[in-house]
Amino acid sequence: MDYLKLIALKDFPLVQPNDDLPSLILKSLKLNSVVLEDGDVIVIAQKIVSKSENRYKNIDEVIAGRDAEELAKKLNREPGFMQIILDESSKILSTEKNVIIVEHRLGFININAGLDRSNIEQDNNIVLLLPDNPSASAINLQESISRESNQSISVIISDSMTRPYRSGVTNFALASSNIPSLIDLKGELDIYGNSLKSTEIAIADELSAAAGILMGQGNDGQPVIIIKGFNRDKYSKNDAFNLIVNEEDDLYR
Amino acid sequence: MDYLKLIALKDFPLVQPNDDLPSLILKSLKLNSVVLEDGDVIVIAQKIVSKSENRYKNIDEVIAGRDAEELAKKLNREPGFMQIILDESSKILSTEKNVIIVEHRLGFININAGLDRSNIEQDNNIVLLLPDNPSASAINLQESISRESNQSISVIISDSMTRPYRSGVTNFALASSNIPSLIDLKGELDIYGNSLKSTEIAIADELSAAAGILMGQGNDGQPVIIIKGFNRDKYSKNDAFNLIVNEEDDLYR
Repeated sequence: MDYLKLIALKDFPLVQPNDDLPSLILKSLKLNSVVLEDGDVIVIAQKIVSKSENRYKNIDEVIAGRDAEELAKKLNREPGFMQIILDESSKILSTEKNVIIVEHRLGFININAGLDRSNIEQDNNIVLLLPDNPSASAINLQESISRESNQSISVIISDSMTRPYRSGVTNFALASSNIPSLIDLKGELDIYGNSLKSTEIAIADELSAAAGILMGQGNDGQPVIIIKGFNRDKYSKNDAFNLIVNEEDDLYR
Repeated sequence: MDYLKLIALKDFPLVQPNDDLPSLILKSLKLNSVVLEDGDVIVIAQKIVSKSENRYKNIDEVIAGRDAEELAKKLNREPGFMQIILDESSKILSTEKNVIIVEHRLGFININAGLDRSNIEQDNNIVLLLPDNPSASAINLQESISRESNQSISVIISDSMTRPYRSGVTNFALASSNIPSLIDLKGELDIYGNSLKSTEIAIADELSAAAGILMGQGNDGQPVIIIKGFNRDKYSKNDAFNLIVNEEDDLYR
């Protein structure tokens, strides 16, 4: 590969529950005069996937259990909000420093279980959850856009995430379809003919981060990015869930 | 911003100690018919910066102290290699799981203090250290390419890094010049008019990750990537060292 082109779809409409996301994307592609080609990668913000799947929850309608009440007291947050976080998590890792760090039921580690209170409607009691099954969402989006456009495209659903050791958020791959997400270079040679020792590349996270540059986090509202030029056929395809490392294999834990 | 274009410089020559990197890059730009414009971001692999600065060290020529000898025994590695890691670090965080995780003297956390044994000459006793002062290197590269091309370009020196919680490496920003590296969106509004709570964006890490897609880790040897279309003027410029988070402010520690 010697070039990549990233295009943000301008004026993407605000997504409502039960909107047909593939057809919104196809319409917006047309309005932006972007023609899909075989191998194009469409990076879609998790937020609009969750919205189309109506993953809203009203904090006031949640009955908080004892653990949630205790957490709420400790962190000075709403018990209902704490309960939703607990429901979305398989394990609490830390409640120090005024945040909850959890292992999400989907496996990855993050703050507040990926719950979102920005870029959603102005009702402060509403939170937006991650898609129920992001992999299934990615496959659906990929298959239906591929079918309608008659091109074999790839899809990444991406979200922004804080990270240990580094300031600021970057985008990462929550789920993917029809693309290599983790590339294994074992057995390949470096430019001097030495065999490479480690080297797995988190390519779906790099594609997500690249798309994140154009998505922005503020009011720019560019939740769909098209990436052209990525050669997905050199490596075998695998789901972005391969980017989650379990505790035993995590060198830092 | 509604588009980004990334171009890899093909056939970049192997870099030798004391090579004049700015002039190698300018020559390669010409051979690749890439014309620099104001605001272009040049992402340069740390490896070739280190090589041009002759940051090689021969393990056999290092006198290992007692700590290095003990570490070498524990991890079954060469004492000289351990000593170089200790010399490059301000703090050892962990020596479990058969690797050394350190706080590098430059502040960031990584494995083996960023020492490199792949993509360097076939002598297994030679390691390549990070630049002595990556910020100074980035400023020098930026100023000299800007001057010679008569365009105000930006430079990021990027390296690949393993991460807690995630499989595979991604590229991150080791140093930068003439570009916003950490963007602070505090006070901005989201698409619904709510004010954003957190949100700092590690934009130099996202640009590095984007460039990493084209650099590859294997034998492709594309260590210089030009990024066109990034609007660096919307936010104030700051050094990539702002992306290092200290222990007190790290929500995960």
